[in-house]
Amino acid sequence: MTAPGAGTGAARRGRPRSEAAERSIREAVVALLEEGLPLGDISIERIARTAGVGKATIYRRWADKEELFVDVLRDIEPPDPDLPGTSARDDLVVMLESVRLRGLAQRSSALLHNVRAQMKSHPRLWDAYVATVIDPRRAMVLEILRRGVARGEIRDDLDIDLLNDLIVGPMLVRAVMRPDAPLPGDLAERMVTAVLEGLGPPSA
Amino acid sequence: MTAPGAGTGAARRGRPRSEAAERSIREAVVALLEEGLPLGDISIERIARTAGVGKATIYRRWADKEELFVDVLRDIEPPDPDLPGTSARDDLVVMLESVRLRGLAQRSSALLHNVRAQMKSHPRLWDAYVATVIDPRRAMVLEILRRGVARGEIRDDLDIDLLNDLIVGPMLVRAVMRPDAPLPGDLAERMVTAVLEGLGPPSA
Repeated sequence: MTAPGAGTGAARRGRPRSEAAERSIREAVVALLEEGLPLGDISIERIARTAGVGKATIYRRWADKEELFVDVLRDIEPPDPDLPGTSARDDLVVMLESVRLRGLAQRSSALLHNVRAQMKSHPRLWDAYVATVIDPRRAMVLEILRRGVARGEIRDDLDIDLLNDLIVGPMLVRAVMRPDAPLPGDLAERMVTAVLEGLGPPSA
Repeated sequence: MTAPGAGTGAARRGRPRSEAAERSIREAVVALLEEGLPLGDISIERIARTAGVGKATIYRRWADKEELFVDVLRDIEPPDPDLPGTSARDDLVVMLESVRLRGLAQRSSALLHNVRAQMKSHPRLWDAYVATVIDPRRAMVLEILRRGVARGEIRDDLDIDLLNDLIVGPMLVRAVMRPDAPLPGDLAERMVTAVLEGLGPPSA
């Protein structure tokens, strides 16, 4: 719960007085993305000009544009959800709720919408985003599922990746791929309950 | 099963001798997309030059670039799958199999990969693609689900959109959103079976 840039962060990044520059750079990236500029048009030069710093100041902190973008995107991400740990079901509801909330945020944020729409055309950025944002969340779900299987809450005859896609896929599609689809507050719970119970008739 | 451009198609489109021009135009769009050009860079002018026709020849057939792109994309789409009609389960497996095959096609086709990655940045094109390609397939799944509910093959206490996302979401995520994920031949059947049976333990 340390404030960003304070303590170890500052030590890692170098001199504390450079924090103002770093903040300006991050804010410049956010501002340019919010304008809806294509990612390809946001050069290091333009970021430097917007932030009022030299290009060297940016390159001292980030190897390239992709690294800077991913760093900014990670900042914007909400923190990992707190898992209740009471059951696989409860933990999965919390994970799906975080996907739902990200979908809502993306719909209301010009920045997130802009970035998300363009990211797949920028493979290096997409790969970095997957590695730093998507994969860790995926690992959390896999861990919940493994625990659930071990405790007998989830059937043990399906591979873990299949379980993951069956649980997370419906909410991802609803929240990310179908921007007009409703995202009601009880959706995460309804989805998890339905997937655990199955769509066949109760007697099946 | 009429050949494209023959019979009523030619009558609808005008003089038969314009078919060669239309084919050249479609082929030009495919060629430019296969080169991986950004959609924004493929102007009507460029298409006309590549096809060796005048711009007016294009505008006589398509109102604008988006309409032409969608027309070409629809041509490339495989035909609607034939449903066996034996059960909701069997029909759903066939629908998911068509999503799986589209995922495989997209991975191996520079054109489909290029278009899909960029489409979301071009809202008019995306909307047209949804209306002409995605929505009809979605309507097929909804119809299968309604029949399945009516016949008692699928539980009747969940809304149809939720059922749709629970069934289709996992394959969409695997085939489209996670380009490195495996797409084995039995995946459609495994997914449908698992969703119908539920992920909870068999005794649940």
